[in-house]
Amino acid sequence: MSKDRILIVGTGAIGSFYGAALQAAGADVSAVCRSDYDAVREHGIAVESQRIGDRLFRPTQTVRTPSDYQGGAPDYLVLSVKVLEGVDRAALIRDAVGPATAIVLIENGVEIEQEIADAFPDNELISALAFVQVSRVGPGQVRHFAFGDLMFGNYPSGLGERARRLAGLLEAGGIKAKTSDNVVGARWQKCVWNAAFNPISVLGGVLDTGHILGAEGGTAFVRKVMEEICAVAAASGHPQPPGLIDQFIDSTARAPAYKTSMALDFENGRQMETEVILGNAVRAARRENVAAPSLEALYALMKMVERKADAGR
Amino acid sequence: MSKDRILIVGTGAIGSFYGAALQAAGADVSAVCRSDYDAVREHGIAVESQRIGDRLFRPTQTVRTPSDYQGGAPDYLVLSVKVLEGVDRAALIRDAVGPATAIVLIENGVEIEQEIADAFPDNELISALAFVQVSRVGPGQVRHFAFGDLMFGNYPSGLGERARRLAGLLEAGGIKAKTSDNVVGARWQKCVWNAAFNPISVLGGVLDTGHILGAEGGTAFVRKVMEEICAVAAASGHPQPPGLIDQFIDSTARAPAYKTSMALDFENGRQMETEVILGNAVRAARRENVAAPSLEALYALMKMVERKADAGR
Repeated sequence: MSKDRILIVGTGAIGSFYGAALQAAGADVSAVCRSDYDAVREHGIAVESQRIGDRLFRPTQTVRTPSDYQGGAPDYLVLSVKVLEGVDRAALIRDAVGPATAIVLIENGVEIEQEIADAFPDNELISALAFVQVSRVGPGQVRHFAFGDLMFGNYPSGLGERARRLAGLLEAGGIKAKTSDNVVGARWQKCVWNAAFNPISVLGGVLDTGHILGAEGGTAFVRKVMEEICAVAAASGHPQPPGLIDQFIDSTARAPAYKTSMALDFENGRQMETEVILGNAVRAARRENVAAPSLEALYALMKMVERKADAGR
Repeated sequence: MSKDRILIVGTGAIGSFYGAALQAAGADVSAVCRSDYDAVREHGIAVESQRIGDRLFRPTQTVRTPSDYQGGAPDYLVLSVKVLEGVDRAALIRDAVGPATAIVLIENGVEIEQEIADAFPDNELISALAFVQVSRVGPGQVRHFAFGDLMFGNYPSGLGERARRLAGLLEAGGIKAKTSDNVVGARWQKCVWNAAFNPISVLGGVLDTGHILGAEGGTAFVRKVMEEICAVAAASGHPQPPGLIDQFIDSTARAPAYKTSMALDFENGRQMETEVILGNAVRAARRENVAAPSLEALYALMKMVERKADAGR
């Protein structure tokens, strides 16, 4: 059997980390790089990780755009760009998607798949959630701090042969692959945490999780926001298990305090994933006629913060 | 008839401005000064104002504490300190309140009177709302920018002889005195604007009114917050007139954009009046069992911002 040909589109920290693992597993992994093209082409990507070992990830092909990818369409196209406003993800990958290409989305947020499913109705679509702390520390340099699991399944549901094969590759590369036949429900579950802690961490003044839960009324407010997300998830057909909110709050309170990705993005002047993490949940609430006043409040305030941040960029 | 003896407690911008007007009207006005005691004692307070004229307000007595005030209790004690957490206002004025002293509160917020009414049940209590833009620009230096009306009446309601006499003095000093026999209702009315725009201006990233209303979903969110305050006001016995919210939003949108007092306090590292402007409205909502989820969200986030600001002070 020939090697699986994989093209990573968006070779930031996440794409590099999983790309390195897939290459370690023996796959033929190429990378679309934009900002770090020269460094990656010359030196590859140095991935420091206790979990998968320190590796030099040298893409088979390092290209500037998917249209430069040679040798026919890949078996898997892994899209690991941040989902930001104004980015047409379908257009970004179209040139490299062939009839047999499985599209793998490793992205945050909820309800991010339909746009890609509509654009590529005949391709297998795999939706994946990364539970990983990994950062780009320089051009072609990525450091893995903690965790690393990838949870995924087919969109809208199920678990096909291609998804299972991807799981095997990841496991061979040192990654724990958690497959799910209800990945959309899993996305909603992650959203319960993300859509609460992320915007609150920004609006509260760039706070870590400890300061959020420790503030007067902080834990009660987090709980209220999480209840609203659970209600939206249930109305969208993805009821969450009882006790989830307690579990999230307890485990966050017990874990060392840390800053959310949105707080870090804000602090560092980067665009935030407000729309996929929070905006999509708000739109789902409106669509399903679920009252979500705390989410609406967070969303309105985040749009103000974003607008001011955009003006300052 | 002898001159009215008036003691101003809290001779910041507001206290100095109205003190100067009352002195211009012929009253015997003294001042309790803390931080600017030396400057005021030596030079008085220079008040620059087109409305009441540039005046040098030289208090009859300039004292460090109310207990230093000589000659018996004043006819009026004007309390014009910011109502901040941890300030015991009753203790602050107790030494200068005599049986015949009318206590005049010139302070922001809602439901700020009862604490003073409980502490001085036999004194006439006058609750006043300042509609004025005035700033302390240096020790013993105050600049008046715009407006200047003082609206007041007796607490909990009515309009007594002492309040009327105060109105006469203020008018003689160049101030438009708007008396009301329902000052608590007027406080709620002002709160409809303040409890919406003030916290949003801070949480949105120190925004002016134009940026708040211009943000995506901004006007709708302001309206939602205002609707909740109107519901709380109505449940507290102070229904607001129909059309008030439209009128507030329209007039704010038409006026030049400006930063709220809370945004200015935050930007300048000063304590904010979160509790009296927003916290008291939230507590009233809880007491009256009125759902106010947007207010609750703003309040929870403001407590986080305050805590972080406190830590940085």
